[in-house]
Amino acid sequence: MLRETVLLSCLALGLCAAADCNTTTHDLHKNLNLKRHHAKMRIIGQSCKEIKDTYNVDEDGIYYLITESGVVYQTFCDMTTAGGGWTLVASVHENDILGKCTRGDRWSSQNGDDPSKPEGDKTWANRVIFGTAEGATDDDYKNPGYYDIKAKDVSIWHVPNNEEPGLWSNSSILRYHTDTHFLDKYGGNLYHLFKLHPVKYGMGECKGGSGIPIPVIYDEGDKESTSELYGSAVRDEFEPGFVTFRVFNSDKAPMAICSGIKPTGCQPQYYCIGGGGYYPTGTLVLCGDFNAFDWTIFGGAGQHKAAQKMIDASMLLFYR
Amino acid sequence: MLRETVLLSCLALGLCAAADCNTTTHDLHKNLNLKRHHAKMRIIGQSCKEIKDTYNVDEDGIYYLITESGVVYQTFCDMTTAGGGWTLVASVHENDILGKCTRGDRWSSQNGDDPSKPEGDKTWANRVIFGTAEGATDDDYKNPGYYDIKAKDVSIWHVPNNEEPGLWSNSSILRYHTDTHFLDKYGGNLYHLFKLHPVKYGMGECKGGSGIPIPVIYDEGDKESTSELYGSAVRDEFEPGFVTFRVFNSDKAPMAICSGIKPTGCQPQYYCIGGGGYYPTGTLVLCGDFNAFDWTIFGGAGQHKAAQKMIDASMLLFYR
Amino acid sequence: MLRETVLLSCLALGLCAAADCNTTTHDLHKNLNLKRHHAKMRIIGQSCKEIKDTYNVDEDGIYYLITESGVVYQTFCDMTTAGGGWTLVASVHENDILGKCTRGDRWSSQNGDDPSKPEGDKTWANRVIFGTAEGATDDDYKNPGYYDIKAKDVSIWHVPNNEEPGLWSNSSILRYHTDTHFLDKYGGNLYHLFKLHPVKYGMGECKGGSGIPIPVIYDEGDKESTSELYGSAVRDEFEPGFVTFRVFNSDKAPMAICSGIKPTGCQPQYYCIGGGGYYPTGTLVLCGDFNAFDWTIFGGAGQHKAAQKMIDASMLLFYR
Repeated sequence: MLRETVLLSCLALGLCAAADCNTTTHDLHKNLNLKRHHAKMRIIGQSCKEIKDTYNVDEDGIYYLITESGVVYQTFCDMTTAGGGWTLVASVHENDILGKCTRGDRWSSQNGDDPSKPEGDKTWANRVIFGTAEGATDDDYKNPGYYDIKAKDVSIWHVPNNEEPGLWSNSSILRYHTDTHFLDKYGGNLYHLFKLHPVKYGMGECKGGSGIPIPVIYDEGDKESTSELYGSAVRDEFEPGFVTFRVFNSDKAPMAICSGIKPTGCQPQYYCIGGGGYYPTGTLVLCGDFNAFDWTIFGGAGQHKAAQKMIDASMLLFYR
Repeated sequence: MLRETVLLSCLALGLCAAADCNTTTHDLHKNLNLKRHHAKMRIIGQSCKEIKDTYNVDEDGIYYLITESGVVYQTFCDMTTAGGGWTLVASVHENDILGKCTRGDRWSSQNGDDPSKPEGDKTWANRVIFGTAEGATDDDYKNPGYYDIKAKDVSIWHVPNNEEPGLWSNSSILRYHTDTHFLDKYGGNLYHLFKLHPVKYGMGECKGGSGIPIPVIYDEGDKESTSELYGSAVRDEFEPGFVTFRVFNSDKAPMAICSGIKPTGCQPQYYCIGGGGYYPTGTLVLCGDFNAFDWTIFGGAGQHKAAQKMIDASMLLFYR
Repeated sequence: MLRETVLLSCLALGLCAAADCNTTTHDLHKNLNLKRHHAKMRIIGQSCKEIKDTYNVDEDGIYYLITESGVVYQTFCDMTTAGGGWTLVASVHENDILGKCTRGDRWSSQNGDDPSKPEGDKTWANRVIFGTAEGATDDDYKNPGYYDIKAKDVSIWHVPNNEEPGLWSNSSILRYHTDTHFLDKYGGNLYHLFKLHPVKYGMGECKGGSGIPIPVIYDEGDKESTSELYGSAVRDEFEPGFVTFRVFNSDKAPMAICSGIKPTGCQPQYYCIGGGGYYPTGTLVLCGDFNAFDWTIFGGAGQHKAAQKMIDASMLLFYR
């Protein structure tokens, strides 16, 4: 009678054809991938934090999320760091440090250095999405959570390029998170923060530093190892132990995120990531997602160059 | 006993693990996002019209669609204009009016002006897809519905770039639709129309106008406001109150859609959108998704230039 | 009582709102697309082979797959050739044979010919994905199955560009498969094979041929028709009846797949597809997904040129 009940529920819900329902419940369980898929689809939330709170899961991995508007997508959840519930929303990957605002520089400009495009590709403050979670260290990534999730804090991992997802956490060269709930003041995510404070040439200037600095707690690395990720010649231009958003250089060219540090100088092209579309000085040396991290390519002094492992890592962005 | 029945159905269908099924039905309803996701997934059709007809919904927003072949995707449905049931299938967004057939010019050519590529990127008549519904005013969009849906009419909105989806309808500078069921003669969608009438250099010519003109009904704006969206110097080259497909200029360069108008002249580069990959005259001035809408950039006369708000809006394409 | 059971199961599983469940089972079946969607979603596996084995389906078409990590995607399954169960994982499409390592050359390099990028875009050995199954003859395609599926053999189809999916099988100019289970030695897929044997300048050399040759069984065409797909001047440089992976030319420039043949010479630019990012000799003639298949463009001799139908076809890659 139970089997008949299952059979009829199955048919009635339109979930299977009569033939499928002739299988016994034992047979239904034979398809492990079907069970696994259904298990995955039973777990969904607007963010990894919501999933963590609702289902009490503690396994890092791929989960289904749904936006306020009903857009469904999958991404990586860090369910373990500092209480877990961190949603991977984006990654900045430098595909060619030699390419100055060329293909792949989605977080600054892919159309060259251009005064008529002060915001460049506008990626920090638009709803364009690209890439995948599993490919986040092979190419740039941005999902709907970047603009949809209502979060309080941010976490950043610097993971070696082309790393297998299961090894990201252990092979990171730097990992940290904020815990001040700073995003409450900025609309709940970086999309809103960068709408309020555009990554746009000329929108501000630098006097002994600039930007929105937030103190961080380290999950991998510390203040000293953070400093060592940047060039020796510029270490007196920042203070480690922070993440800073939307800064300017001495030419009013903007940069988006200074990872692990608070700038006290005005040359963020050496220690901050992302940008707009116009950098007045630097005859195209500066332009690109990792800006002037490798100054030496253009004859610049070696001591300004960021550590090679920093240049060869992707910056993964999480919300909670 | 009912609870046991639910429990056993649940387990038998492989929809949950024993632990999940220990929850009461009350608990299952606690996960509002799970309910919301299931509600979204219960509603699916081959087009927004089919969804409207089947479920009688009247809320604009994101819905699940499925193609004839079984490809599943999400897009925006306009469930309210003129009876509702309009499926957003594409958008043409000009990312750089200065870039002449450069990156982002998917609806003409991204590989420059080139006689060996008379069809350019061929986007009007291929199955390549890109972008997302929510990002349709931030970048180009094209989903499987563009080539799959069997429709009768078309609707077009011109929405300011970077506009929040909830505000698209109200902030549009122009909205209209056809009601002649013209697509019946063209295979049911623009993919088929442009297969029959390729956007390809040399496929036709212009004598006092060209193309397939269809009269429209306005939902926002009128004939006068339509004319004012184009340059004053070219307003005697078209008649407002139409949408026209696949036209040619005096050099046999094709353009795809003349929005809100029927050309009576042979310079559609000033008032028609999209193109092929080769424009003989105009030393690269013409090439690109919005063609020569901003002629002034290259020293051209200001009166040919389209209204700035037209250049800075995305053309959203709907089917019903 | 049965209807109440269905109703309550329905509500309890959160699968429908009370209003929906007032419909009779007859009404639930009225929405054919909902049934069709559920039918599609009931069938899922890690590969088309697993789906074939589990469900005994024999219809070519679009199916749902799930990776080991839980990423869900759809692709085309060939359920009929040589026992069926072949998963479409990628396609190499040449969008512009004139463009030498330009936009669209994802399977070699999109950033020009560059000694500092010996692996080019690294697409053969990373987790970047792009395109769609239905668009696989309109543009490049690569899905998560490329790096996730544990397979034993490979099948390749050369399908005319822009062909409708339902006609792919019949209009192919060449189709074949391996049956040696060679992938067992290479980690189960080409992602792992190319991790072990990178498509990277300088990693090897050529002496009377190079690479990993695997004998093939033809499904369409034969050894003679295979030879005729390449230039007459180079037919003495290979033996048909094989597929060969990761070869080098006389300058140590790598190429990824020699389709239908085993090279015995050292000019694979004329008969092998894909590459790295640096080709020392050939002043940019060689660079690109289809390498030097059309040598004549640059003044080269016609007899080296591959058949036009080979240049105008996409190479579809399947696993089983």
